[in-house]
Parts: sequence; C-alpha cells; structure tokens
Amino acid sequence: MERELIHWLEREFSNCRQTLIGIGDDAAVIRRPAGDIVMTTDAICDGVHFLSEVHEPERIGYKALAAALSDLACMGAEPLAATVSLTLPDSATLDWAKRLFAGMKRLVERFGVDISGGDTTIWSGKLILSVSAIGVAPPGGAWRIDTAQPGDRILVTGAFGGSLLGRHLDFEPRFEFSRQWRNSRLVRACTDVTDSLGLDLAKVARASGAGFVIDSRKIPLAPAAHEMANRSGTHNVMKHALEDGEDFELVVIAAPEAASRMIAGTPTPPGLVDIGEIRRDTALLLLDEEGGEHPFTPRGFEHQSVATDGSG
Amino acid sequence: MERELIHWLEREFSNCRQTLIGIGDDAAVIRRPAGDIVMTTDAICDGVHFLSEVHEPERIGYKALAAALSDLACMGAEPLAATVSLTLPDSATLDWAKRLFAGMKRLVERFGVDISGGDTTIWSGKLILSVSAIGVAPPGGAWRIDTAQPGDRILVTGAFGGSLLGRHLDFEPRFEFSRQWRNSRLVRACTDVTDSLGLDLAKVARASGAGFVIDSRKIPLAPAAHEMANRSGTHNVMKHALEDGEDFELVVIAAPEAASRMIAGTPTPPGLVDIGEIRRDTALLLLDEEGGEHPFTPRGFEHQSVATDGSG
Repeated sequence: MERELIHWLEREFSNCRQTLIGIGDDAAVIRRPAGDIVMTTDAICDGVHFLSEVHEPERIGYKALAAALSDLACMGAEPLAATVSLTLPDSATLDWAKRLFAGMKRLVERFGVDISGGDTTIWSGKLILSVSAIGVAPPGGAWRIDTAQPGDRILVTGAFGGSLLGRHLDFEPRFEFSRQWRNSRLVRACTDVTDSLGLDLAKVARASGAGFVIDSRKIPLAPAAHEMANRSGTHNVMKHALEDGEDFELVVIAAPEAASRMIAGTPTPPGLVDIGEIRRDTALLLLDEEGGEHPFTPRGFEHQSVATDGSG
Repeated sequence: MERELIHWLEREFSNCRQTLIGIGDDAAVIRRPAGDIVMTTDAICDGVHFLSEVHEPERIGYKALAAALSDLACMGAEPLAATVSLTLPDSATLDWAKRLFAGMKRLVERFGVDISGGDTTIWSGKLILSVSAIGVAPPGGAWRIDTAQPGDRILVTGAFGGSLLGRHLDFEPRFEFSRQWRNSRLVRACTDVTDSLGLDLAKVARASGAGFVIDSRKIPLAPAAHEMANRSGTHNVMKHALEDGEDFELVVIAAPEAASRMIAGTPTPPGLVDIGEIRRDTALLLLDEEGGEHPFTPRGFEHQSVATDGSG
C-alpha cells in the first residue's frame, strides 16, 4: 500500500512552484537564488526501526539524525540545520530524553549541522523520532536518482549486509565522499542504501529508465553479513548483502572515466568500489561466482517503512 | 518535564553555526545570502491533537500542514515547501491515507507551498503526522518573540476561545496579514496562539524580559468561547478566551504609532485589534470589566504537547 501511496502522491503533488526535485528522490530540492535548498525528513519508530527496551537512547537519537543527514550526503548537499519532532511515551524520563539528544550531538559537532528547533509531544503510545534536515547544493547540482545513463559504472562507498547486528544504529553519513566530489561534476546519480542494495539500485535504474548488471564477486561484504548468514542458517552471505536494509552506504553512478578518477581519488575508508554497470535494457542482472548472468529480483528488509522521498 | 527539556535543549544546542534564531522561537531562522530560511516542524498525534475515530482524515491532514504554515506566517516568512512524515496504523487503508493528503491540497493551492517529500511508516501504533515546512524571510527580518519593548501595543488578528469545538481543525494560517506587513518594518515581535492566548503572550513577554497588561473588555471572543462556557457550566467566557489552546491567531507586537497604522490598514477579516500593552515591569496584569487591574496567571490547554520551537 505504501508504494501505491507514493506513486499517487508523486502525481498528486507534481505541480510544484519552487521545487526542482520533489517526491520520489532521496530528498527534495527547492530552488533558491544563492544555491538550491535540499530538504529531507525521516521518522524512526519504536519496534520498527529500533527497540527502545534494547537500544540505548544515545544510539536511537544518533540514528534518527544520521538517517536524515545520509539523505543530504547522497544528494551532494552541505548540511545546514535540522529540527527534531519527538513523540515520547508518558513513561519516559527527562534524563532519558536528554540522552536521545546527546546521541545527536556527536553528529552536530562532526558535521557542523545545527539543531535549530523541533517539538515534543507526550502520549500514551511508543517513541517516534522524526528528524527533518536542510542543506544547500550548487544550483541545479544536487545528485538525483533519475539521471543514470547506459554504460555508467555502479560504485559503492562500503560493504553491505547484516546492519541489523548493530551498524544500522552506528553508521556514518558519507559526507567525506560527498564533500570531496560535489563540485567535480563527475557524479551522474546517487542514492543511499536504506531498503537494501538491490532495492535502492533498482529504484535508481527504474527512475532512469534503465537496467543494470552487478557482479556478485565485486560486492563488498560486511563482516556482519557473514555473521547474519551463520545465525540465520542460510549461510548465504550474498543474499544478506543484497537484501538487508539500512547499510546507509552510497550508490554512486558515474561515466566510466569519471568512475576511474573517483576510485583512484577517494581515500580509504570509505573507498569506492565498482560493482557493475547501468544498461539500456531494463532487465536487472546479477553475475554469479562463475560470471554467469542471471535475472535479479530485488528484495529487501522493508520493515513496513517506505519513504515518499525514497529516503527510508 | 517538557519545559525542562526545552530549557536544557536551548542551552545544549545554542552553539549554532548557521542558525540566527534557534530553539525557543516559533520557527528556526537559518542565515542564507539571498534571504533567511525559516524552518519549522509540528507533529500532531491521534488522541492528543485529534481523534482519528471522530475527525475526517481531510481535516486531520489540513490541521497538520496548517499548524506548520502558521509558524511560518507568524515569523513573517513566505512559504516554500513542506515535507510530511506519516506514521500510519496498520489498519489504515490507502483511500484513508489519500484523504489525509487531500486535506492538505487546499492549503497547497491557496498559499503556493509545495509538498516536496516525506516518508511513510506503517506500525501497530496510532497515527502521527509530522509536517516540516520552510519559507523565506528578508535577511534579519523574520519576526521574533524576544524583541517586544515596553510601551509596545499588543494586537491580535482574530477571536479567541473554544477552538476545540472545531476551529482547531479548520483555522486559517494568517498569511494575509503576514504578506501585507512583512516588509513594512512595523512589526516588532510576533507569535501564533497555540498553547493559549495567555501562555503565548507570556512567552513573548518572558523572552523579551518584559511584562504586560491586557484588557479583558477588548479581547475578541469567539462564538465558540460562549458555547464552551455554556457547555462546561462555568459560564466564564473570558477564561476560555484566555486559556483555550489552538486558536492559531497571531499576537502582533508593535510600537503605538506602527500599531495604529496597521490597525487602520489591515482589512477585515481578519482585522487587527489592540488588547493591551507591553510593560517594563515583568508583572502580568489583566484589566477586569470595570477596568480594575489584577495579577494574571497564564494557563492553557497544553494537552501534553510542548514545542521546542514554541510552535505547539
């Protein structure tokens, strides 16, 4: 039902006055004379995106702000400010609420974003944290999802799979990459991986009217992907890398020569790895360990959450 | 606990880089070369700010966006774009979700604001709608709450009391007033009434290091204030006008001459009514029906909701 709602919203609210990029991308882009404003919002909910009885409030607060910032990073935007809308259970204490915000402070200091406002409601339900953030991008220069072209390379900024074991609460918004390359004009399209590598890559391909082939031998596997494969008993590490959600790594699309320049010029970590190619044909393909080509069906841990701006 | 949290947050996140006005006002103001960006967020929750089993989804959607827009209006900002973070109960249907957004569409068309993005989560809890909105104000020209001066007049754009009978879902963000006077430099301070006329006026006085005297004979009473007084059996209409929340009228502070000019020049409706004066002494005073001066204790229907940006 969420996908249907989003498609309806895209049509219903497509007649925008100030908005250059609206519903459907990772964040919205609003035209302004001195640089485009990039705006995003992300809500994380107890029992869906975290467990308040298991996870420390610092980690929950960190995740809420980091998820919104990741949307700015993948648009190539420099963060300016964020607001926090907090819906607290009536059992929460002042100290606990403070610890939520303390978790955000690390990101505030690290990336120079301001916490500029918000609101707080106490209710009988569970915790929800909704963070909105704005940033700025060069006029017309924000990285979109619908501009990949056949022949472009598919690059990723890190390893995939098993984020549920902890990384989904501790990931790093990829501003280092974003700041290094935002003015280079080498990035053709970009997104961050929230639903899963497979689903988010399919989203880029669909929005661009294209397909892709990715090489399973080149996809970086997170240590946690191995651990998840052992725990789940499937022992299928690649399945976790392709289908687990909330890796928050960037998928960067670039022409072959631009891709080579960025791979050579991006320090490790996070580094940049070539995992495949955008194709004119809309088929989605995966190369197996022997290099054999197979149709690929993207799946993901969607945990009932779908971003109308694609941001997870 | 909310007030304590906000005071802690004001200190904790006061060291802002890009933010001119941060936590504590109706909205945040972020400095940009071509005009300040004004940003606000408001969450409304089932059972707190509306009742999903009683109110039509169109009215709930309308209220969520209108509350955020009211914060832009009371800052003197022109709206640009909004994002909607929707947390839906798993029992909600696609049609019902569409009707929520249909209620926003009236505001989109009326005020030229774009719905530019958002995200949707399905969960086992109740409905929450969190709307963030951005607008633009002349550099340094956003209307604040902490700039009232002794001798200034206190003006209001409408009548107060009894909004719970329906107006809290159908109110009009006061952009007509805001657009007419934003470039006049006649407005010294401004807020919108969310917690109650008394509480929000006290917030302006406290932030400005001042007090006030308001005249109960001049405060415009909404028809619903009379009806609430009858229903509640108190028959105290003034109490409802002063203490009921969510009127969403503007409280405008201006020097006496500026106040006269705006009163003469503001068309009715909404019109503009002088109800009192800012005083150097921090006492809060109310004139009774005979003109006798009494200490005034602000109270409100706070329904457990407190805005860290003061926006209700």
